[in-house]
Amino acid sequence: MDITVDPKLTSFIEVDAQSHFPIQNLPYGVFKPESSAPARVGVAIGDYVLDLSVLAQQGLLKCKHADAKQIFAAPHLNDFMALGQPAWRAVRGTLSDLLQTDNPTLRDNTQLRAQALILQNDVQMQLPVTIGDYTDFYSSKEHASNVGLMFRGQENPLLPNWTHMPVAYHGRASSVVVSGTNFLHPHGQVLPPDTEQPVYAPSQGMDFELEMGFLLGAGNQAGEPIPVDQAEQHIFGMVLVNDWSARDIQRWEYVPLGPFLSKSFCTTISPWVVSLDALAPFKVDAVAQDPQPLAYLQEKKRQTYDINLEVALRSPHMHSGEVICRSNFRYLYWTVAQQLAHHTVAGCNTNVGDLMASGTISGKEKHERGCLLELTWGGKEVVHLSNGEERRFLLDGDEIIMMGWCQAEGYRVGFGDAHGTMLAHSA
Amino acid sequence: MDITVDPKLTSFIEVDAQSHFPIQNLPYGVFKPESSAPARVGVAIGDYVLDLSVLAQQGLLKCKHADAKQIFAAPHLNDFMALGQPAWRAVRGTLSDLLQTDNPTLRDNTQLRAQALILQNDVQMQLPVTIGDYTDFYSSKEHASNVGLMFRGQENPLLPNWTHMPVAYHGRASSVVVSGTNFLHPHGQVLPPDTEQPVYAPSQGMDFELEMGFLLGAGNQAGEPIPVDQAEQHIFGMVLVNDWSARDIQRWEYVPLGPFLSKSFCTTISPWVVSLDALAPFKVDAVAQDPQPLAYLQEKKRQTYDINLEVALRSPHMHSGEVICRSNFRYLYWTVAQQLAHHTVAGCNTNVGDLMASGTISGKEKHERGCLLELTWGGKEVVHLSNGEERRFLLDGDEIIMMGWCQAEGYRVGFGDAHGTMLAHSA
Repeated sequence: MDITVDPKLTSFIEVDAQSHFPIQNLPYGVFKPESSAPARVGVAIGDYVLDLSVLAQQGLLKCKHADAKQIFAAPHLNDFMALGQPAWRAVRGTLSDLLQTDNPTLRDNTQLRAQALILQNDVQMQLPVTIGDYTDFYSSKEHASNVGLMFRGQENPLLPNWTHMPVAYHGRASSVVVSGTNFLHPHGQVLPPDTEQPVYAPSQGMDFELEMGFLLGAGNQAGEPIPVDQAEQHIFGMVLVNDWSARDIQRWEYVPLGPFLSKSFCTTISPWVVSLDALAPFKVDAVAQDPQPLAYLQEKKRQTYDINLEVALRSPHMHSGEVICRSNFRYLYWTVAQQLAHHTVAGCNTNVGDLMASGTISGKEKHERGCLLELTWGGKEVVHLSNGEERRFLLDGDEIIMMGWCQAEGYRVGFGDAHGTMLAHSA
Repeated sequence: MDITVDPKLTSFIEVDAQSHFPIQNLPYGVFKPESSAPARVGVAIGDYVLDLSVLAQQGLLKCKHADAKQIFAAPHLNDFMALGQPAWRAVRGTLSDLLQTDNPTLRDNTQLRAQALILQNDVQMQLPVTIGDYTDFYSSKEHASNVGLMFRGQENPLLPNWTHMPVAYHGRASSVVVSGTNFLHPHGQVLPPDTEQPVYAPSQGMDFELEMGFLLGAGNQAGEPIPVDQAEQHIFGMVLVNDWSARDIQRWEYVPLGPFLSKSFCTTISPWVVSLDALAPFKVDAVAQDPQPLAYLQEKKRQTYDINLEVALRSPHMHSGEVICRSNFRYLYWTVAQQLAHHTVAGCNTNVGDLMASGTISGKEKHERGCLLELTWGGKEVVHLSNGEERRFLLDGDEIIMMGWCQAEGYRVGFGDAHGTMLAHSA
């Protein structure tokens, strides 16, 4: 089966050049057409969601060895993901055929179009995947160096293990939410500066972290590591991730066992999962590594994806968000293949629906720093907004909107956005 | 409903005084009567498992607002746990009635007894709960001090945050397994002593960690912390936990984000979940805390449970295990109530089936140290076994058997055991 993407392909659904969802993308999500309706699987095309449960019901979408009607009427993608790469590619091929300009099947069936194509503005997107375990890597050298400099000082900004392995920690899966879910300003234990007695207080160091994550479509058994050159076959697709963080809570709690409550109150992901096949045309060489890592981390062909990333902040006084950071997924030192190979090398098993995030994606430039901690250097500087407001860390009512897309000639393959607002406690 | 346990109560099932499973216990588990049969819920009584799916089928076990036939024919306890404390207590009361000496219902129904009572030796125990998230605390002051001394030296064995909060990290849920599951000797990145270049090698620091864990029967919504004095109402019961660890992998990877691959290849829990109601008669005052913690961690009545713990090691040359550590759950500095209150204080949501483990439970005495790292002081000393063997860390083929029980006058309320063997790689 040919999985290359034809850049010239067009759909009978009109798609703007700025849209993230041309026929070359076809990202998967889970949605409710209205709040009382059961959730089901859809694919984004232009301004629409294509309801795959309707297509399956009509016999237009089949899965080998599985009941497509059940698979696409499920309230999560896990059952579809579990079918494996050949099934993902077969469905992607069918959808691409159905949506292209010269295919009359859906195009000319007014009744079916009315049933199966719903404006994205009219649906409620759901968490696309039932997350198994959530792992957060720390794979940006620029981010790790900046944070190390601030938390530990000049002597050892980058710890000795960092260039030898994709450092990571287990995150909290229960608090992963879909874009649009707001959260209450966390309170917790913090150590005020120059004191030795912690206090319980609202965090004064609320931050976002610009990340991306991949979702496993196929896991591994305990004791059977995934070889680095086979790792991408296990990956169903990618999402935007905002790993909201409370820096003052983090600073007080994280030694010696790592971040805990500072990052387990909310983690936002985009509703759309973009497949690696849709991202394939945007492969680029990954950052060169020095020193050379151990053999199990060496890739035959070392590539990553050129994905533009933006973070916008919208204060309660603003009508729309203002971009405060521009970065790129390609800046990461460790690739997704290396992350997954490392994760499993000592015997850890993984499952369909596991989420593995990159860690904050910072670049070399100041405007490429992927969190306020770096942008304001721990609150020492300020981010100036064009309406005159300033931020060191987030304030109640602030919304953060993350966007990510690959730019092709004349179209974009994107993730839509991942947004969320920090709410004040009513009390 | 009276939930006090009558110490004089007896069952028509004969129960040895050394048994962990008298009528006062009634711990829940999930089992298959034979490998091809579907898993279902059972309760341990003496040498038997009582099949609750059979009792429900016969109409002898009901659940308010839920179908007991489905609940107890499920391959996990989660559905039952989700019913909440009143339902747990109602079922516990019914089972206690059914099993007591003077109740003829089950006692005199030969056919029903044949169906519902199966020897534990003849069944296959399963992971009792579908684990949501797994959190591992670090609540033994003796353990944290010993490890700190070894990993960081005399200056700061106990870090400044330790006496102010129950320090914890997110663990890996996918690798939690039921007692009896073996695992392959992990290989991973380690830094050989006095070098700067890591190597990929079999761990030379394989260890167990004697822990206990509690399982949540009722979670909390994001942003709605669980008050410390209500925390125990959320807890369904407790299990033994062996948090197997690879110390050399841990030492190289854990700064700054905490343990990752060193503890995610296997975590063993006991098949039997003992309810807090069964443990209630063994409540004792918890260790006094100095300094006094913040208000959200202060308990009206500060209690814990007197649970004897033992670790036995069985090498391939031994017929049965030899006890190498004796400890007690009551030694822990932070209680389960404090752990759960802290876990949720910054807004983290929790779910039915979440597992929260204590961290290694060490006492003040040398023989009370709950892992080899402490028992051999990082491999500097040896543990002598009576057959002449010695251990610094575990070797291939070693089995670790953990046991836990509360001692009453004439009977024990226990957890059975949690055992597992580290296997050599065949290659």
